[in-house]
Amino acid sequence: MLKIAVDAMGGDFAPEVNILGAYEAAEDNEIEIILVGNEEKIKNFLQEKRELKGRISIFHTDDYILMDENVSTAIRRRKTSMRKAVELVREGKADAVLSAGNSGAMMALSFLLLGKLPDVDRPAIATVMPCLKGHFILLDAGANVDCKAEHLLQFAFMGDAYHKTLFNSKSPRIALLSIGEEGSKGNEATKEAFKLLQESCLNFIGNIEGKDIFFGSADVVVCDGFVGNIVLKVGEGLAEALMKMLKREITELITGKIGYMMIKPAVKSFRKKIDYSEYGGALLLGIKGTSLICHGRSSAKAIKNAIKVANEMAKKEIYKRISESLKSKEDINEGKSTVNGLLCS
Amino acid sequence: MLKIAVDAMGGDFAPEVNILGAYEAAEDNEIEIILVGNEEKIKNFLQEKRELKGRISIFHTDDYILMDENVSTAIRRRKTSMRKAVELVREGKADAVLSAGNSGAMMALSFLLLGKLPDVDRPAIATVMPCLKGHFILLDAGANVDCKAEHLLQFAFMGDAYHKTLFNSKSPRIALLSIGEEGSKGNEATKEAFKLLQESCLNFIGNIEGKDIFFGSADVVVCDGFVGNIVLKVGEGLAEALMKMLKREITELITGKIGYMMIKPAVKSFRKKIDYSEYGGALLLGIKGTSLICHGRSSAKAIKNAIKVANEMAKKEIYKRISESLKSKEDINEGKSTVNGLLCS
Repeated sequence: MLKIAVDAMGGDFAPEVNILGAYEAAEDNEIEIILVGNEEKIKNFLQEKRELKGRISIFHTDDYILMDENVSTAIRRRKTSMRKAVELVREGKADAVLSAGNSGAMMALSFLLLGKLPDVDRPAIATVMPCLKGHFILLDAGANVDCKAEHLLQFAFMGDAYHKTLFNSKSPRIALLSIGEEGSKGNEATKEAFKLLQESCLNFIGNIEGKDIFFGSADVVVCDGFVGNIVLKVGEGLAEALMKMLKREITELITGKIGYMMIKPAVKSFRKKIDYSEYGGALLLGIKGTSLICHGRSSAKAIKNAIKVANEMAKKEIYKRISESLKSKEDINEGKSTVNGLLCS
Repeated sequence: MLKIAVDAMGGDFAPEVNILGAYEAAEDNEIEIILVGNEEKIKNFLQEKRELKGRISIFHTDDYILMDENVSTAIRRRKTSMRKAVELVREGKADAVLSAGNSGAMMALSFLLLGKLPDVDRPAIATVMPCLKGHFILLDAGANVDCKAEHLLQFAFMGDAYHKTLFNSKSPRIALLSIGEEGSKGNEATKEAFKLLQESCLNFIGNIEGKDIFFGSADVVVCDGFVGNIVLKVGEGLAEALMKMLKREITELITGKIGYMMIKPAVKSFRKKIDYSEYGGALLLGIKGTSLICHGRSSAKAIKNAIKVANEMAKKEIYKRISESLKSKEDINEGKSTVNGLLCS
């Protein structure tokens, strides 16, 4: 049974949703959970709820990081719940860690304390996004703002390994986010990355434009962290704005109001499907360990889902798979393999 | 009365929608329109419709540019409808030009034949996008893929002048698209541009995140053309995908089906509001003339709207206003003005 360290104090609705999410996850799965944070606060909340089970323990810390705190000073404090939670993984006392707290701090602490994998220049954030035909993985979603072609190539290899591990897929379709389908379209980094990807053994399907990503034509969408973060946030904001605009339009007329009552259950179910916080968290790829960043507004269900993903990824040793994938890339570069695809699968 | 040159052969539904749009625009406004393209084809279509009015004339060209043609070869051909339409502006025979054809070619021809304004390093594409509280201007939407801070600053000045001209606003709120609200968040170019914008006399409200642009918290959103084009296309694609997903969800149940019938008029009106093709075209800023690029899928109404915008922008001499705005920026840089805002309004 694997152990998951949960930063109990991170997120807009901490510690409540983290504790509830941990409970729900422990009920459904073969998991041990360590809630890291203020023992008194956690226990106070627990008294109102159910008793602690054997599968959930508390690791006490006095301090915790605020949501909008400056990252560089926040990560220096030694006894924050977030730092301790990551340290538990480093020390081998936990198999994975997750936090819905300050995402910049969580990223920095994970990189710093767990360290990069040998063949990785830049670890990346990978998010799972909903689309018409299921889901796709977008990376980098915000770890690296200025990227070179080689970094984008590494993201593609990491995304490939993540998709295979998460969805048990054989040959995920990898696409490069750009402003035209031809390889000649894009900025300097993407144009160069296009060539590198074409030469790689990945199932590279070429450039993808922004309008196509939500129709499911690619399984892994690669971009730099500046673009990725903007796409992620635009998607989130636009979905919310559109639903508000549509509701305003519908409820202007009486027939619309009645109609809206009738479609309300469908709207609710739809909202859940497109709500990013329902999809667990974003996984950090390229580090020696399993670390998930959850949305600050995560619900208990989102925390539960993230714990499940963390457990599964730790069990399948995602970071070893990524390391192997990048190793195979290097082997091919060095001419150790002449058959494309052999080492990549 | 101003003259607008319309590339009759450009767009997915050419020449029909262009001709219809031109008619509708000529009916409603004090405009003369020159339809540039194959005279026989235009007249054939006109026979089925109404007769030519005095306000609409035809400028014949045999050749035209295909939608997905290679830009560099397409713009070299001398007798295409698009090239001739732009040339009419250069020769002073028309006051503005628009095309729903190959957007790369239209951009290149406009830049090439009309030329840059003196203080402009990089002309940009500005689009008007719908949001919860009306509209905002996004630029650059695709003309410049790799931008420096100074370019972003120029885009801000051009966007400011465009907003004032289009919406008769006094002091539009200018924001820089980035991945965090603090000036320290972003890539190299945006971090540097943040400082330049802070020192400028513009009403700079700071960085804006992707999730906030559709809520109307800024009037002008500045970014490089790679990011801008992706945001534009993501918005377009996501809106379409979401509506499809929502409809699928709603019509799964009988009550939903009935409810959907009742909300259908509202959905239709909503779709129109968020349909980018309903907002005329994207204006090229920073060139010596008024040139609009319309969506390839433009309807007759979109062409009509674009003609109206082209007419208004030509009448208000948008490019002179942009030139003055950028001149004021230079004056301030050179210390000719010490009072912020004096020369900028």
